[in-house]
Amino acid sequence: MAVDPEKYLERQRSRLEQALASYLQPEDSPVLAAMRYSVLGGGKRFRPLLLLASGQHFGAAEDLLLPYACALELIHNYSLIHDDLPILDNDDFRRGQPSCHKQFGEALALLAGDGLLTLAFEILAAAPAPGNDHQLKDRIMAEIARAAGARGMIAGQWLDISFNPDHRDPAAFEETAFKKTAGLIRVAVVSGAWLAAAPAEAVAALEGYGRYLGLAFQLRDDLQDLDQDRLTGKAFRPNLAAVLGREAASKLLSTWLDLALQELRQADIDSEVLRFFVNELQPGRENQP
Amino acid sequence: MAVDPEKYLERQRSRLEQALASYLQPEDSPVLAAMRYSVLGGGKRFRPLLLLASGQHFGAAEDLLLPYACALELIHNYSLIHDDLPILDNDDFRRGQPSCHKQFGEALALLAGDGLLTLAFEILAAAPAPGNDHQLKDRIMAEIARAAGARGMIAGQWLDISFNPDHRDPAAFEETAFKKTAGLIRVAVVSGAWLAAAPAEAVAALEGYGRYLGLAFQLRDDLQDLDQDRLTGKAFRPNLAAVLGREAASKLLSTWLDLALQELRQADIDSEVLRFFVNELQPGRENQP
Repeated sequence: MAVDPEKYLERQRSRLEQALASYLQPEDSPVLAAMRYSVLGGGKRFRPLLLLASGQHFGAAEDLLLPYACALELIHNYSLIHDDLPILDNDDFRRGQPSCHKQFGEALALLAGDGLLTLAFEILAAAPAPGNDHQLKDRIMAEIARAAGARGMIAGQWLDISFNPDHRDPAAFEETAFKKTAGLIRVAVVSGAWLAAAPAEAVAALEGYGRYLGLAFQLRDDLQDLDQDRLTGKAFRPNLAAVLGREAASKLLSTWLDLALQELRQADIDSEVLRFFVNELQPGRENQP
Repeated sequence: MAVDPEKYLERQRSRLEQALASYLQPEDSPVLAAMRYSVLGGGKRFRPLLLLASGQHFGAAEDLLLPYACALELIHNYSLIHDDLPILDNDDFRRGQPSCHKQFGEALALLAGDGLLTLAFEILAAAPAPGNDHQLKDRIMAEIARAAGARGMIAGQWLDISFNPDHRDPAAFEETAFKKTAGLIRVAVVSGAWLAAAPAEAVAALEGYGRYLGLAFQLRDDLQDLDQDRLTGKAFRPNLAAVLGREAASKLLSTWLDLALQELRQADIDSEVLRFFVNELQPGRENQP
């Protein structure tokens, strides 16, 4: 389909904002207020946009995709709130605003994160099954839970904060980046394709695409952190970019992005939008998707 | 059916322990270790036993019920781990052992709680649908998420720690007890009946039973806390028993237990086991179910 990716994404972003707000109705409750503050205060919506783009490329209806997309965004936001807490990453700012616990206190931030994770699964439970195929729906829910769970994203968060600073093994950092970030990004891309009942070869290619895109997304973030830490004098925090050095990291980033494009090409997935996500992560470009 | 409730519950408890352990396979991961420590270190298994008893009374197979029962127990355990954290309730001990964060540190305890909540929904996603009725399965999942969520248990946790000590309105404390404790207990009882495709009038009666039993469970706990706090000199924490006074609280506890039994009677639910749960909460008896 001939689409202008930027216009398409802008429209989808606004649909997502509406849908997310509808799940977080205003209510006289401090927990809900903290949840709204964190979710509706901006964000690139990278994961839900990927799910929508992948699903729509293969012909799924937006109404089918939206609840799944929103659930992924809520899971992502819960992980940010908990990650920002002093007992994990101790970040006072998020998207240029005070982080949830700076705004609402640590108790409410903890509970708001719990609330978002639980709401994500409430939304999934109530979501329609693609083509009335409930086994497929159950499988998607289980894959999302697995990617977000103690052997996926949560394991990655632990690895991320528990690294020995003397540890310099790039493979270990790549594993961390996969678990912490790329796993949920991959499941976003693949869920969209599953919901659209895309052919198995396409799904397999999108698994590769999602994996490389997710790794690139994290490596790009690591590279930006290097600059940031140098500017702010923040304590050194080992990451893959730091371990490889700036030049090798940029080269690896390009390689991963090439591999992501190659997966699309080899499976004849001709999506302007899915290529756009890749190209926006090229070294030297602003991270805008 | 003629069953000795204590023998029945003992057998079910050991089935549950097995099933829970199987979901938390040993693995070289500190997050999994913290999850196992918290879940497999004891506990009354009140919620999953209720689900099993209610489902089996109406003829559901144990294999159908077990995943749902385990998911509820994992949700309960995640809430205990997060509740014990210094930023919420700050409890150093749980079931006579160091609480999760005392044993593993606060970061791992936070992540272990997140992991248990996520695992609960992974198990539900993979659970069989009763009689292949997937809409019913989705409804049960959504009801569990709602009872556990930001308008249910999480709201109750916030109310519990944010009460103004000068506040003395019993209705507000009853609302807190319902959200914090009784909602999940009610959904346990009702889920069992739903999974067994019990008649609508029976489900309605079990909603009442679960509500009164859950409120009684919390009030009984409050009464024990009064004694405990007097013994240990722990700071006064307002709760329903404290607000009502010991005598009125014991009377209310008896009233709720009577109402729970009445719900069973009026719907002709003749279950020795469901009555046993009530009778074990009678004032003056050890809390053994």
